Amino acid sequence: MSTPLEVWVNGKAVANSNVALDVMDRGLNYGDGLFETTLIHSGQIRFIDSHLARLREGCKRLRLSCPERALLEEIVQIASTTQEGILKIVLTRGSAGRGYRPDPNIESTRILSLYPMPSSHAVPGLRLRWCEMRLSRNERLAGLKHLNRLEQVLAQSEWQPEEADEGLMMDTAGEVVCATAANLFVVREGVLITPDLRYCGVEGVMRAQVLRAAEALNLSVSVEPIWPDDLRHSSELFITNAVRGIRSVASLSDIEWTSTAVADRLRTWLKL
Amino acid sequence: MSTPLEVWVNGKAVANSNVALDVMDRGLNYGDGLFETTLIHSGQIRFIDSHLARLREGCKRLRLSCPERALLEEIVQIASTTQEGILKIVLTRGSAGRGYRPDPNIESTRILSLYPMPSSHAVPGLRLRWCEMRLSRNERLAGLKHLNRLEQVLAQSEWQPEEADEGLMMDTAGEVVCATAANLFVVREGVLITPDLRYCGVEGVMRAQVLRAAEALNLSVSVEPIWPDDLRHSSELFITNAVRGIRSVASLSDIEWTSTAVADRLRTWLKL
Repeated sequence: MSTPLEVWVNGKAVANSNVALDVMDRGLNYGDGLFETTLIHSGQIRFIDSHLARLREGCKRLRLSCPERALLEEIVQIASTTQEGILKIVLTRGSAGRGYRPDPNIESTRILSLYPMPSSHAVPGLRLRWCEMRLSRNERLAGLKHLNRLEQVLAQSEWQPEEADEGLMMDTAGEVVCATAANLFVVREGVLITPDLRYCGVEGVMRAQVLRAAEALNLSVSVEPIWPDDLRHSSELFITNAVRGIRSVASLSDIEWTSTAVADRLRTWLKL
Repeated sequence: MSTPLEVWVNGKAVANSNVALDVMDRGLNYGDGLFETTLIHSGQIRFIDSHLARLREGCKRLRLSCPERALLEEIVQIASTTQEGILKIVLTRGSAGRGYRPDPNIESTRILSLYPMPSSHAVPGLRLRWCEMRLSRNERLAGLKHLNRLEQVLAQSEWQPEEADEGLMMDTAGEVVCATAANLFVVREGVLITPDLRYCGVEGVMRAQVLRAAEALNLSVSVEPIWPDDLRHSSELFITNAVRGIRSVASLSDIEWTSTAVADRLRTWLKL
């Protein structure tokens, strides 16, 4: 696991160590905040508008103050001096006393951490597995990239990296929702389908780009519930995230796929 | 909202400010950890065994290393020099790089913060309200006092302190589970009932004490699902938490209660 090259808290670079957070921060105490993981490419944050739009929407739903102007200035500056890397943005409700009740007068905390680009494995197709851990359903939190991520943590702890590349997660009702850190797309009878996220899952930035590209390419698209059995009848699978892009799936337990045709068209259109 | 009198991170007192946490801590990034809120009374932590037992059980379920001996030493020392107060214990999986996957080799982080005793309002009976926010169901996380608390945060943001003393929460299926920061007990046809917590809710330290006291007092007890309609047919309601003890409920929206008989017997037996 990588450690950050540099960290900024509320616009200030943190020197020497990364010890820079108030222990009273509500991000720590309640997971009361949001995050974004962005890719810096050629000195620019890829899909910056989508990341900021999701953050803005998340702030609105959690009633969190969104320091968008300061954040935008900072991340543009970091991107331009970095050229290539991963920039993680954490935005919390800020520091306050004990108790769940949010104090509307406190200022949010923004934590930016810069990581080197992960070494790109030229993986032809991902090997997926099913996770035992289920996602809980809650319409009020669905779609948000919030800091309550214990379900993903427990899901990823189910296997070792050498056993599989990613894990698929169902919700507690048995619907297939996503991978632990990526959205899911399947192709079935010529239709590109991605799970609707009305109960859980994250509205991925790359997922939105794929839906946009699919429309431009006149693909037949459906956003609907997906069940495990549907995967067996799909001709192609891929998963998406903002940093890693579109990644074709080669297998899920005993099911195998060889087609990458739709993923290839989308990658080409999106210049990934 | 109160601010801490003193803070310790991994056994070291934090001087001057509370800025003492690594921004890479998994408690912040994923809510990957647990907490306990304890009462210090006459130089001792009340129900210390129950708090430590719950923490130990939580660590086991989250596969988190539990620094029990160090923690015990520290909290006993703090309690003995403090006499009266609130001690909050946060235990996280520690600091690691980006990514959900837990690194089994990292050390957990323990954060202790000491608060003054809250001013005790001599409230004769609490006024409760219903929360719109629902609790999501997930057997794997049920009962744990983990750091994923966005649901409680959003629930408490629904009302102002002067409008109600606490809010009751249902889960997404409509079962009544608990208050935002307390467990619920109802008396119906002479039976003391508390919601089972198989899908969500926290296994409260005071809840366990009440169940123990009820057994000693030969009360008829049932741990079972409770639905909103059941409350209307109950003769007495109270809520419990480790710091505030047993608190009788006077009203929930338009329903009112005057009996505090069972709560009184339990309070007397437990010397609260």
